Amino acid sequence: MEQSFFPCINELIGRFGTPLYLYDFSHITQQYHALKDEFAARKSLIAYALKANSNLSLVAHLARLGSGADCVSLGEVKRALLAGIAPYKIIFSGVGKQEYEIREALKIGILFLNVESEAELLCVEKVACELGICARISLRVNPDIDPKTHPYISTGLSENKFGVSIDEAKRLYLYAHKSEHLEPVAIHFHIGSQILSLEPLAQSVQKIAALLRSLLAIGLPLRFFDVGGGIGIPYKNEQTFALYDYAQMILANLSGLDVTIICEPGRFIVGNSGFLVCSVLYEKITQSKRFVIVDGAMNDLLRPTLYQAYHDVMVWRNGWLATDNGTACDVVGPICESGDWLAKDVVLPPLQSGDLIVFKSAGAYGMAMASNYNSRERAAEVAFDHTGKIWQIRERESLQNLWALELPFLQAQN
Amino acid sequence: MEQSFFPCINELIGRFGTPLYLYDFSHITQQYHALKDEFAARKSLIAYALKANSNLSLVAHLARLGSGADCVSLGEVKRALLAGIAPYKIIFSGVGKQEYEIREALKIGILFLNVESEAELLCVEKVACELGICARISLRVNPDIDPKTHPYISTGLSENKFGVSIDEAKRLYLYAHKSEHLEPVAIHFHIGSQILSLEPLAQSVQKIAALLRSLLAIGLPLRFFDVGGGIGIPYKNEQTFALYDYAQMILANLSGLDVTIICEPGRFIVGNSGFLVCSVLYEKITQSKRFVIVDGAMNDLLRPTLYQAYHDVMVWRNGWLATDNGTACDVVGPICESGDWLAKDVVLPPLQSGDLIVFKSAGAYGMAMASNYNSRERAAEVAFDHTGKIWQIRERESLQNLWALELPFLQAQN
Repeated sequence: MEQSFFPCINELIGRFGTPLYLYDFSHITQQYHALKDEFAARKSLIAYALKANSNLSLVAHLARLGSGADCVSLGEVKRALLAGIAPYKIIFSGVGKQEYEIREALKIGILFLNVESEAELLCVEKVACELGICARISLRVNPDIDPKTHPYISTGLSENKFGVSIDEAKRLYLYAHKSEHLEPVAIHFHIGSQILSLEPLAQSVQKIAALLRSLLAIGLPLRFFDVGGGIGIPYKNEQTFALYDYAQMILANLSGLDVTIICEPGRFIVGNSGFLVCSVLYEKITQSKRFVIVDGAMNDLLRPTLYQAYHDVMVWRNGWLATDNGTACDVVGPICESGDWLAKDVVLPPLQSGDLIVFKSAGAYGMAMASNYNSRERAAEVAFDHTGKIWQIRERESLQNLWALELPFLQAQN
Repeated sequence: MEQSFFPCINELIGRFGTPLYLYDFSHITQQYHALKDEFAARKSLIAYALKANSNLSLVAHLARLGSGADCVSLGEVKRALLAGIAPYKIIFSGVGKQEYEIREALKIGILFLNVESEAELLCVEKVACELGICARISLRVNPDIDPKTHPYISTGLSENKFGVSIDEAKRLYLYAHKSEHLEPVAIHFHIGSQILSLEPLAQSVQKIAALLRSLLAIGLPLRFFDVGGGIGIPYKNEQTFALYDYAQMILANLSGLDVTIICEPGRFIVGNSGFLVCSVLYEKITQSKRFVIVDGAMNDLLRPTLYQAYHDVMVWRNGWLATDNGTACDVVGPICESGDWLAKDVVLPPLQSGDLIVFKSAGAYGMAMASNYNSRERAAEVAFDHTGKIWQIRERESLQNLWALELPFLQAQN
């Protein structure tokens, strides 16, 4: 959203109100192709990780580009299907798949289940047996490598709940290979999210590729090498690694192997494609601080308070990007706790009620983590593209939506 | 929920499934009266803070006991009204009230607005003028006292976004007193949540009571002394202060004054009245840790990951409270991040799929902060009382609920 986009912003806010999530679908297209093209020399599948942002129209946009889906609940599998992603492009991951979710996924005939524990493997086998089918599976292998990201989104250490160790993976692959109702087709790892250095990814690929070779050597019919996601994006000015180096590193480790590469980006595709637009309500200058109070809050964007995450801020005034000098302030929301902040110590010009504050990099883990805390309605979502086209993709919640599942019980009591 | 409650738990889970929020309405009654009775010698209003848990049937239960409502959004005001709380018992607080919210609240004729800044005061005056009425207001005074609680729920320091300083309060009270459209009727403070020591509260009451006396002396018609909430509850074995001491401390500071005491408890009323019941899905023992994976997650109960909060855990097996010896483990949910944990390093017996893990003290800031992260449906809510009566108060979300506001736009595009 450059200054060139300014003719629209007042119209947008007039039509849809604030707080508002805005997505640049052209940027999504660009990110998708940037990654996909790096693997042009090989068979590859980009399986978009819906957990980052599962809006149906957004997923449908990716489906039209050819994307598959990495899902972590039956809800996400159903969303992927609704959005037009074919079952054979859907992967189901996650440490806590329930039996009914496994059954549904097998009936749908998704590409494979990423199994995360022995107990889950036995559950998949049991369900497949009941259905009289053979379940395509992969094991998520935990390479025990530190991705050097926020501890909450680090997943590839043995102290994390995810995946199985390399030794256990060998044992379970052999078990699955012998089972009538399990067909091991892939190998998978995912060490975390927002990874900025290639090194831990390279170490992981090396370990898992070696495991793949040893499994192929003893006759396991593995056809997919699923490298997970985790590609970091710049929120501030972070140095990220080049996609070319990332892809070449993977390709080099797979030389001579006939496997399809699966990549599961979420944040990389949508993170910097999304914006949260808020209106300034009040400026408040206390003895010790300047506060800018906006109509968006931690229920709309949880990342700052949960991960101490940084989101770059732009100010728009009367349809123009404001660039005048300012002073340091905290941007906070209306929620009644001090944890409700969206930006800390940012330098902003003097602001008036009605000025717009736009948080950048809000496309991933923004709306996906939104709640109704303080009985606040969740924001509307709107898409735009480089042609200037604008269209709504989610309606703003109403108060009626908030209590729809409670009101019948209240009325029954009265 | 004692062992005596065990005959019900299997039936409950059979009827409503898990994860499930369970509330003991008799305990809510008990907590309400425990506090109300301490102020029996004075005019008082217990204004339940809906932000802790705004379920309509739960609020209606409090309404029947005589409770008022402390609201922090128009959504909460509307919930209070729906639940049967009279406008004259409703208070509207919060740093980011929007103009349309203020207008609505004034039209409804609530008891008063707790104003948190000069800018907001001017906005209330403007709206009241447009409506041709006189708005009853209070100022939230920030006493600049450290409540010694989690920084995210500490609100009474000058570095927090809440309220106005004592000096500013004097100036704004005088302004309001002279305004045709503002009627200052109350004085308010609230220094934070989950306060375990009486000392910071006593210091605040002293400061604010002194301010009240000086304002009364110059002729301001203040009739309500609103001490906010913040009364801490035991999550583990924390020592809390006695309600008697709390009430006597307030009463002592108000001797000789004819004001109604308003108290705004949230967590105190519902915190230990609520339970989150989860089913065990898998046990997983890695090289470095034992994990118990349950069907509840951070989207159901955010407090552990957001505030590093502790929730006591009970295990139920076949309808019985399990008390056998155990080993240390982390209880985690199915969400795909390491931040998704509900209990860390708790000692639990060996567990099997289908055993129940009940998190205690989950009545406040549990369901209120729940989200649909990972496309997970929010839990059902069920109430029970000491007579053994059980009744549902919120339906479990369906996947259709999750995408109801998105699907029409997807269909329009196709």
